[in-house]
Amino acid sequence: MGGFFRSRWVQAPAELEELDPAQLAPGFRAAGVACGLKGGGGTDVGLLACEAEVASALLLTRNAAAAAPVRVCRERTDRAGVKAVVVNSGNANAATGAPGYRDALEMRDAAAAALDLEPRSVAVAETGTIGVPLAIDAVRAGIADAAKALSVGGGEEFARAIMTTDRDRKSCAVRADGVTISAQAKGAGMIQPALATMLCFIQTDAQIDDPDATLRSAVSRSFERITVDGQMSTNDTIVLQATGSSGRPLPAGLLDAILLQLALEVVADGEGATRVGRIGVTGAASAEEAERVARAIANSPLVKTALHGRDPNWGRIAQAAGMALAGEELDEIGPEAIEAAELSSDVFEAEVSLRLERGDGASQVYFSDLGEAYVKLNSEYTT
Amino acid sequence: MGGFFRSRWVQAPAELEELDPAQLAPGFRAAGVACGLKGGGGTDVGLLACEAEVASALLLTRNAAAAAPVRVCRERTDRAGVKAVVVNSGNANAATGAPGYRDALEMRDAAAAALDLEPRSVAVAETGTIGVPLAIDAVRAGIADAAKALSVGGGEEFARAIMTTDRDRKSCAVRADGVTISAQAKGAGMIQPALATMLCFIQTDAQIDDPDATLRSAVSRSFERITVDGQMSTNDTIVLQATGSSGRPLPAGLLDAILLQLALEVVADGEGATRVGRIGVTGAASAEEAERVARAIANSPLVKTALHGRDPNWGRIAQAAGMALAGEELDEIGPEAIEAAELSSDVFEAEVSLRLERGDGASQVYFSDLGEAYVKLNSEYTT
Repeated sequence: MGGFFRSRWVQAPAELEELDPAQLAPGFRAAGVACGLKGGGGTDVGLLACEAEVASALLLTRNAAAAAPVRVCRERTDRAGVKAVVVNSGNANAATGAPGYRDALEMRDAAAAALDLEPRSVAVAETGTIGVPLAIDAVRAGIADAAKALSVGGGEEFARAIMTTDRDRKSCAVRADGVTISAQAKGAGMIQPALATMLCFIQTDAQIDDPDATLRSAVSRSFERITVDGQMSTNDTIVLQATGSSGRPLPAGLLDAILLQLALEVVADGEGATRVGRIGVTGAASAEEAERVARAIANSPLVKTALHGRDPNWGRIAQAAGMALAGEELDEIGPEAIEAAELSSDVFEAEVSLRLERGDGASQVYFSDLGEAYVKLNSEYTT
Repeated sequence: MGGFFRSRWVQAPAELEELDPAQLAPGFRAAGVACGLKGGGGTDVGLLACEAEVASALLLTRNAAAAAPVRVCRERTDRAGVKAVVVNSGNANAATGAPGYRDALEMRDAAAAALDLEPRSVAVAETGTIGVPLAIDAVRAGIADAAKALSVGGGEEFARAIMTTDRDRKSCAVRADGVTISAQAKGAGMIQPALATMLCFIQTDAQIDDPDATLRSAVSRSFERITVDGQMSTNDTIVLQATGSSGRPLPAGLLDAILLQLALEVVADGEGATRVGRIGVTGAASAEEAERVARAIANSPLVKTALHGRDPNWGRIAQAAGMALAGEELDEIGPEAIEAAELSSDVFEAEVSLRLERGDGASQVYFSDLGEAYVKLNSEYTT
């Protein structure tokens, strides 16, 4: 067991080999280059391509104010046949109107041309400042550079090219049961000046019969179970690409473990975050109700400040649960139903639980704490 | 026009006289005494009684984890015939189980006995620490003292007796069109160690045919339009009592103006708050949709920190609106649809607006900013 699966909450398959995270799954090549969107020469254009046939899945934010690249993907991408991904970090290309949409299309088409692919097989993602026109000429030049730099060991440079305020790259490459998976993610809660964005790209040589169902299932247990500030982004994008060249299926639990670890790294990297909590709710009337209660607790600023201040304040958990169940008949929630001691412990990952007595529904949500640094970061920046 | 109606958003009737806020509407007497629940001898038991016949309305939190006094009021109070109110500040009597319920009943019964009233005609409210047994003997002694101290000029002492972390009393007495209204409220977002609680009591000699509808209407435009931290309390209670002795109806708009000003004082007194914002949403598909969007914006930590940091960050407003409308078809929300300049202005009460193009639905929500002081207050306290 290597260093990637750090969380107490991640169950990785017993038999696996961690590879250099720069290494991509067989059949994939990637690169990251600097085109000038980020100040200081930071890597800001990423390109990821698969030469073989792929089965793929593509999940996009449901935010109704979605950014231009998300709209392009929704309307003009073959979700089941994504052979390449082009990303910039530095400009979210959100709330940029018709010119933004044209820029996102042009970015996609430039990548398709450089890779000699059908435009519909290229997904485009962007993350960074919103409401600012994209420097499309610079991005086009970056794409040309990246296409020349593609390599099987380009995973780390690609992971760097999608970062914004992330403290570090979030990526891995693992091998188990004859299958390789590489993955890169980013997300830190907030980027200048406005938005949380989460991006995640997964490549594998496993054979996946239904990539969409496979990805949705893993995402429902990982990225859909986290919250930093309760804010749905305009740019969230997740892509799974599988070549099937290994001739083997995904090892059970491996995709779940990788996505949960990456999701937890996003939470841990939440702006100003110093700790991560998991609230587990059992005994709800349904799984949906359990999730609603868990989410209300995870998003309560009272619970998040208690996690920050190491205050084992079970009353705040009872109050948030009561709010989520407003109008329902409910026996009073007393201290015997709540386990909150780890809020005040030294553990980085604190486990908290609430036991209702309404049925068998259970769910859990992972969340970051709320500290002064969050407020400082988000109130001191002035556009 | 006197000093009470300070907000730019409150439209008080043109012809009115502000009275000493200690003065109660005719027929009412009140008192506030110290019984030892608060450290330092603070006033912590309030009693308010009406000798005449009254028509009344009583609104209670919908939180499913409601405190004992709220449960007592729900189950055992004649909402249309509330002649007296007994309150303590210092102990919320929430999450205190069966003993807490018995204590709340006993508190109510002690007040009824001291005032020679039917127990069902007495409302009980409590606010303060949760999960801690009530010192019922002290409260009983306080009630006896308060009953002896009742006076027509007891409004200020009563207002003081319901305060917890409030910076100052929130009360008024006004006269218009031959009718007097006095009102007292409290609320500051948070009280040790856990909960937001809002209490409001209104007395008048106006004749009100349907107090419940009258109160609900005014509350729907005031207390139901505010947010400090998005957290529904376990103890919220509002009581309207009207004797009808003036023989005149409520002047149009007066109750609305009083409750809105009091509600805005609660927002302005939100823990750590330095500014108040109003987000108005127009052009939504319905009023409900407009409220959902306005509330998502008002509760977004990104918007609240922008209000704090005087950042005219319209992108955060677009993102929150898009989240509230997730899954809906929506044209991109650009800067032309959002007025956010006052976020960065020097005004204390900042007006922000969003214009959708989906229909005629409109709503608005008042909210406080999110500053380091909020985090400090709520994370440094350790139970």
